[in-house]
Parts: sequence; structure tokens; C-alpha cells
Amino acid sequence: MIKNPEGRKRIALDMDEVIADVTPKFLELYARDFGEVPPKEVWWGKKIYQLPNAEHIRGYLHEEGFFANLPVMDGSQEVVKWLTEHYDVFAVTAATEFRNSLRDKLDWLDRYFPCIGWQRLVLCGDKRIVQADYMIDDHAWNLEHFKGKGLLFTASHNIHETGFNRVDTWADIRAYFENELATNGQSE
Amino acid sequence: MIKNPEGRKRIALDMDEVIADVTPKFLELYARDFGEVPPKEVWWGKKIYQLPNAEHIRGYLHEEGFFANLPVMDGSQEVVKWLTEHYDVFAVTAATEFRNSLRDKLDWLDRYFPCIGWQRLVLCGDKRIVQADYMIDDHAWNLEHFKGKGLLFTASHNIHETGFNRVDTWADIRAYFENELATNGQSE
Repeated sequence: MIKNPEGRKRIALDMDEVIADVTPKFLELYARDFGEVPPKEVWWGKKIYQLPNAEHIRGYLHEEGFFANLPVMDGSQEVVKWLTEHYDVFAVTAATEFRNSLRDKLDWLDRYFPCIGWQRLVLCGDKRIVQADYMIDDHAWNLEHFKGKGLLFTASHNIHETGFNRVDTWADIRAYFENELATNGQSE
Repeated sequence: MIKNPEGRKRIALDMDEVIADVTPKFLELYARDFGEVPPKEVWWGKKIYQLPNAEHIRGYLHEEGFFANLPVMDGSQEVVKWLTEHYDVFAVTAATEFRNSLRDKLDWLDRYFPCIGWQRLVLCGDKRIVQADYMIDDHAWNLEHFKGKGLLFTASHNIHETGFNRVDTWADIRAYFENELATNGQSE
């Protein structure tokens, strides 16, 4: 059932805003409710639902289907496929707050990242229970408690965070792990 | 959001056959399909779907609703409530193989174990990613890789397992942790 036995280093990979691009969906819902797409300079630096009068947009996360059709983050499929050849890659997503997100997230991962699959999907509420060597996440609070090496994936809401090893793109992630492999050798 | 900060010891608590009693449901389905409930001496020592011609019964795990109405394991609610006063208790369940089980399991936990709640639910495929001080589980394979203290909760299919610290009932679990607390002091 599990292809990678003990021995490979483990990566805990966040889904939303790391491999799944949530921003276009939020902008679409904002445009539907307010009649216009806000320009990037207005929402860059925060979450879309932190714009004036837009708090209700976070509520759409509870709707069935919200996570079903999110676009894949640029370049993530190729790099994740490559990562799975060297590491034990788990998708770890904070999802249990949203009961209708669970099946959508599983189906989405199966469709776009079959190299991870249900065997290595973790749907949780609190990532402190996760044990891994690396964590790639857009939320500083997940990296704060993490004992391994954390990578903060740039998202609109985290651009003012400092103190984390930041990656802006999936090309950056590939370069980071190429360097890790060159420095530490193959992980298995 | 999270009541227990760092400091308390963490327990990873399995759901099926530990807090959720799956056997009555399997027996009910067996009786529906074969016209009779098999006597305990026939299935004790294996899983119900390992009885002759009953392999298809495992397939019912894929159906929506299978996990929705499982009875609570005797004594588990009171002891889990007590455990949450001393430990950081997570429900950790292998669920991602069954896409239709996810929401049912979340709803079931909310209904019967609100002291755990979605914040501490982990729906996964492979428990090796879980980091905890204790694990209570009915499957030896989950305890084999676990670095903390494992407790094997007796279930029909595991009665021949040796080499694990076995607990037969929730009263046994309470007694085990009373002893841990008396020996090591309060965990926080």
C-alpha cells in the first residue's frame, strides 16, 4: 500500500495556496457579490475576505464544491512529482473545520496529484500532530511549532512575515530541494 | 481555538473498534446478506468480512452512512472526557481510503465526543506521520512504527497479537493512565 518505506525524509505539503490556488476562486466570489474584481494592490498583503464588508466570503469555505475545482498552483505538479522520487511526500491540510471540504479535497488530490494519493493525505485541524522533516506552508502559525525545516510559501496574506525561509514559486522549491539533496545526499 | 497549549502529553486515539463499535454494524450487514447472525465463536479471532464468502462486506465501508450511526464503545465517552482533562487527545483515524466516510466520521465525533472536536481530528491514510506520546489502536501495524507508548485495544481480529501492551476495556485504559499520572505526575 505504501510505496516508500522508512528511510526517506518526509515532506508535509500544505494544499490551499501552496498546490491549490484559492485566490482566483475568492476573487470570482468577490466579483459576484460586489460587481467588480478588486485590483491586486488592494488585496495584496491580506486575505480577500479581509477587504471591507467581505467577511462573509470566508463563509463560502463551508460550501460543498468550493474546493472541488481550484486551479493547480503554477509548476507544482511537475515539482511534486519530482519530489516524490526523492522524498516521502504527504499532503497535510487544515480541513476539519469545513465538513463539506473533506471529500472535495480528497477527490482534488486524486485528480491532480495521484503521485500522493489517499495513502498520504492528512485532513486535520491542528498540524502540530504532524511529524516530518520538512513542512511547506503558507501560514506562519503552522511553521512556528514545527520541529523540522519549514518553508513559507509566499501568499498575499503572509508577505509581511519574517523569520521563515521563504519560497515564492515552485521553481524556488525545486531549487531548495536540489540543494538539500546535493548537500545531504539522496534522502534514502 | 486550541484549548490545550504545548506542554500536555498527547494521545492519538483511534476511532473504529476503539471508540466506535464497528462489529454490530458488520454483524447486521452479514445477517442481512446471509440470513443469520454468525455466533461469536465463528468470527472471534478474525474480521467479519474474513468469514467464508463475506469478502464483499468490507466494500460497505465505501458507502455513505456506514460510519454515521455506529454505537459508542462501552465506557469510552466518560474515560475520554476524563483523559482530555489531563492530556491533549487527538482522534486519529485511517479514513482517506473511504471518500464517503470523511464527513460521517467528523459528524460522529462532533456528536459523541465534543470534547475532542474537529480541532483534534486527523483523517489520514498512514499513521506514521502522527507524533504523539501515546497511541491507542486496535491494529498492530499502527503501533509497530509508533515511537511513543502504544496500547493495543482488544478487537476480534487482534487477539493473537503479542508484544504490545494490551487493554481490553475502557476501564483498563482509565486504570493505565491513572497509573501513568501517579507515576509521572500531571502531564502539564
